[in-house]
Amino acid sequence: MKNDCVFCAISEGEIPCFKVYEDDLVLAYLDINPFSEGHTLVIPKAHYTCLLDTPEDVLQGIVARVKKIAAHIKATLPCDGFNVLQNNGLAAGQTVPHVHFHIIPRTGDGEGEITFENHKGDMAHLAQLAERIRMA
Amino acid sequence: MKNDCVFCAISEGEIPCFKVYEDDLVLAYLDINPFSEGHTLVIPKAHYTCLLDTPEDVLQGIVARVKKIAAHIKATLPCDGFNVLQNNGLAAGQTVPHVHFHIIPRTGDGEGEITFENHKGDMAHLAQLAERIRMA
Repeated sequence: MKNDCVFCAISEGEIPCFKVYEDDLVLAYLDINPFSEGHTLVIPKAHYTCLLDTPEDVLQGIVARVKKIAAHIKATLPCDGFNVLQNNGLAAGQTVPHVHFHIIPRTGDGEGEITFENHKGDMAHLAQLAERIRMA
Repeated sequence: MKNDCVFCAISEGEIPCFKVYEDDLVLAYLDINPFSEGHTLVIPKAHYTCLLDTPEDVLQGIVARVKKIAAHIKATLPCDGFNVLQNNGLAAGQTVPHVHFHIIPRTGDGEGEITFENHKGDMAHLAQLAERIRMA
């Protein structure tokens, strides 16, 4: 537990939440400023800042829970689909520095939209960039 | 391999890609309509439609690669942060029905924004909803 972390306080029960799921590894609860009906956060109970400092086995435990919880939400609401979104760093819109996965139910009726404006790529640039970041 | 799947064709080398990483389980390559510089897709080589029909061990293998690739991209570009986004179903903006994880590098200079308009939640409604979808 990190003292000044609001998600640690939620995980410890010091701050209440709208709980959806809990086990030894994770806690899942509704986002109180939801993007859509059933917008849920899945967090590890232990404190890690973002994806990069979360141990691999913890991440693997989380992703198994995300699948299980998303399937349950999709069947229960129901909804037509869902986004899994995981933000890392302020530049990526991560407002609480305790690693968390958003499950965002979506329906076909146009309720909200994650505006995600892609830019038509320059193929020569992409070829160069891929070479630059390609992993051995 | 699924015959009419463009990501299977990329995975099989029938359609070229700007490769970033490859191993037995996954292939990672640049999105050709990137949201930001270094926008990368990570896909399993085997065909699964979305998160829900992807076996747990495959998902766990993918998330370990996503962490590794994202760390590498963040160090190489560099960038200030990144989103991991995984869309399921047309209603969630999934345009290719082969499960994939977006790694979207972000910088603090305001280059692009995933507009993600949250709605202030109604607490009584959220309490009721959490009860409805709470898992035993």
